[in-house]
Amino acid sequence: MITKHMIRTLMIETPNVPGNLGKVATAIGLAGGDIGEVKTVKVGPTYTMRDITVQVDTEEQLNDVIKAVEGLEEGIKLHTVSDEVLSAHEGGKIAMKSKMPINSLAELRRVYTPGVADVCNLIQREPDKAEIYTTISNTVAIVTDGTAILGLGNIGPVAGMPVMEGKAALFDQLAGISGVPILLDTTDPEEIIRTVKNIAPGFGGILLEDIGSPHCFEVEDRLKEELNIPIMHDDQHGTAVVTLAAVISACKSAGISLKEAKIGQIGLGAAGIAICRMFMAYGVQAVYGTDKSEAAMNRLKQYGGQTTLNIQELMETCDIVIATTGVPGLIKKEFVKEGQVILALSNPKPEIEPEAALGAGAAYAADGRSINNVLGFPGIFRGALNAKSKVVNHEMLVAAAEAIASCTKHGDLVPDPLQPEVHEKVAEEVERVARRVYVGV
Amino acid sequence: MITKHMIRTLMIETPNVPGNLGKVATAIGLAGGDIGEVKTVKVGPTYTMRDITVQVDTEEQLNDVIKAVEGLEEGIKLHTVSDEVLSAHEGGKIAMKSKMPINSLAELRRVYTPGVADVCNLIQREPDKAEIYTTISNTVAIVTDGTAILGLGNIGPVAGMPVMEGKAALFDQLAGISGVPILLDTTDPEEIIRTVKNIAPGFGGILLEDIGSPHCFEVEDRLKEELNIPIMHDDQHGTAVVTLAAVISACKSAGISLKEAKIGQIGLGAAGIAICRMFMAYGVQAVYGTDKSEAAMNRLKQYGGQTTLNIQELMETCDIVIATTGVPGLIKKEFVKEGQVILALSNPKPEIEPEAALGAGAAYAADGRSINNVLGFPGIFRGALNAKSKVVNHEMLVAAAEAIASCTKHGDLVPDPLQPEVHEKVAEEVERVARRVYVGV
Repeated sequence: MITKHMIRTLMIETPNVPGNLGKVATAIGLAGGDIGEVKTVKVGPTYTMRDITVQVDTEEQLNDVIKAVEGLEEGIKLHTVSDEVLSAHEGGKIAMKSKMPINSLAELRRVYTPGVADVCNLIQREPDKAEIYTTISNTVAIVTDGTAILGLGNIGPVAGMPVMEGKAALFDQLAGISGVPILLDTTDPEEIIRTVKNIAPGFGGILLEDIGSPHCFEVEDRLKEELNIPIMHDDQHGTAVVTLAAVISACKSAGISLKEAKIGQIGLGAAGIAICRMFMAYGVQAVYGTDKSEAAMNRLKQYGGQTTLNIQELMETCDIVIATTGVPGLIKKEFVKEGQVILALSNPKPEIEPEAALGAGAAYAADGRSINNVLGFPGIFRGALNAKSKVVNHEMLVAAAEAIASCTKHGDLVPDPLQPEVHEKVAEEVERVARRVYVGV
Repeated sequence: MITKHMIRTLMIETPNVPGNLGKVATAIGLAGGDIGEVKTVKVGPTYTMRDITVQVDTEEQLNDVIKAVEGLEEGIKLHTVSDEVLSAHEGGKIAMKSKMPINSLAELRRVYTPGVADVCNLIQREPDKAEIYTTISNTVAIVTDGTAILGLGNIGPVAGMPVMEGKAALFDQLAGISGVPILLDTTDPEEIIRTVKNIAPGFGGILLEDIGSPHCFEVEDRLKEELNIPIMHDDQHGTAVVTLAAVISACKSAGISLKEAKIGQIGLGAAGIAICRMFMAYGVQAVYGTDKSEAAMNRLKQYGGQTTLNIQELMETCDIVIATTGVPGLIKKEFVKEGQVILALSNPKPEIEPEAALGAGAAYAADGRSINNVLGFPGIFRGALNAKSKVVNHEMLVAAAEAIASCTKHGDLVPDPLQPEVHEKVAEEVERVARRVYVGV
């Protein structure tokens, strides 16, 4: 189902005649390309050159887009098609850097031997001092076994590294956290747990990332039991936090009281189960779910949720429906109830197109393009580390979701993920809750 | 034996009268303090303020130094005693940084989802592409179990973190390598091997660091057997490389032909055994060693070395003697032979003071202050990674030692470790040898 998310940059020349850019955009759109950024590269006396970023699903679609642009007349020319995604990843995206240059032997003797021995001795005598004199308390391991990389599945940890590096880059930029990718050469839950425990002393927190279902549940639960640092599986709880934030905003737009509503979750994989648990933690009484797997249905019941026999029954029962199945078009128009809120989150094609859902009577409908985990994990870990919390729990996660919702403009689902204030707000709220619960403030 | 290596900065005011700084320096020296940097902070109309960095071994010695300076008259005043070492380590010394800022949603979509999926797919199809599109091939894990941190012994991995961060900072500054400290919560060799293998996919090389003897031998040998990336235990081979470089230079100064000489090693711990092996790899025929441990003596024999019954016999037999025992004063003056080269490397107090050895007839004598591993590991890994070598072997290590020696000024033991050219030369030579052996160039 999930194919390539290809992004290409087309450099296109158009004569300076009004309407030409419109022709180009229309041709690209009709051929199935989604236009992202349009950047003017050069304004000549009679023409304009623009870099147009286009997203397509397949190589064929890219060819269609190219043909469509090339087929335009009136002096419109396609100059180059470049892959800026690949160039952006060349050499990798992160590096461990020294915080200060070492310029003299005196400095070398301070930061390295013999001076460093003094700091080691101090930490040995007073272990709490590691918090001050090492980076441990500001470093988060980004751990994957490569079994569920994005929507691409079990492609292995090395092929997943670009995602881990992306997380580390975002940790740095949005929260000042040092994120260290750890690629596991095992997919056995016991071995994953053992390995992560064996390397845990060097980290102030652990972000589990793109670990498949169902072993992700055991890995996360056991590590939380056996280690005393904040641990979060992003594909479960990061996704659930951003989804809860989006639903809070959608309910505000649709005039629905969320806590009294009936929530339905279609698809009970790692994200689906976590979304159900997040709504229960938020205070929603009636949480329903459905999945073709019996085991997944039982898991939801264990956590206190209710199940429906099928999608149709769930759609009939619920005021708010969230889908994370990876199956495009799964929700038929005729299932939609008047006034329903529908978030069909599968990427790149949703379970129902928002326009179709709205046309069938939904009060609010959206797809998953804007539900980006990057809204959650940087601030959640910043807050947890600031509070010296030993856990990431649902109270902290709900606080994060509310913080994200509080930064969302009316009518939007979520705020701009690159807005620094969002992450500051998330960090603040998570820290506040963590301190209240664990430090007793 | 090995006590604290304390570095403190004394801010001292002296009236502008010639000879005052001499009085201060003499007082500090007589009280047992080693003066490092002297920095003029302020030149007033009648006085000068200076920051004088002083190294002492114990708290008592620091007090003696302070009293000595305070006891000086003629307007000499001690203003503050500050611990610049601790301030230099505050907040830790390293951070994982994003190589480029992510400034727009378009950029976010390129470096993170959905664009990143394209790069993941590419690496899955063509695993070699990970070399280009991830940081793995430029990232080295700095792995310790905390059992032999500097000369401080088994103080645990967290107390050893300042050393690992120092290594990472030097990797960055001197070789542009991304160094990632990995602190192990186990000292069991099998468990160390298993854990390192489980996290190996994320790294282009592994620097084993401050792992105690004898389990360091098994850990290194097995990891080299079972993994296909450059692996080096710095306390063994890094030390041995720099020692070989120093001995090459010392022999040049003393007019001794190293390969024909008889080499004696006192102390057959991790460093001692590695030094013996390095000399054999360099082409020295007669390598002797002695240690109070039978097991250590047997280990040397396994590697092809000869043993002597005791230190005295070794001193009688050998032209060049190296000591790494950690026992100050172990080598008596009366053992020294006319024309011998003696490197007594234990820190902070050598087995014999260089002056005493020279006085007893040695042709060249030095202690371990300048034998700093930082001359080796950055360039060795830079060269190995550049060559895409699957190992670090003795040929590459000998090339590193010769490169260091070739950068050493006549009369010196080793070059300035902050000189970038040294590391470039080491990297070049290591890469050249690695390519010749493994790529067939």
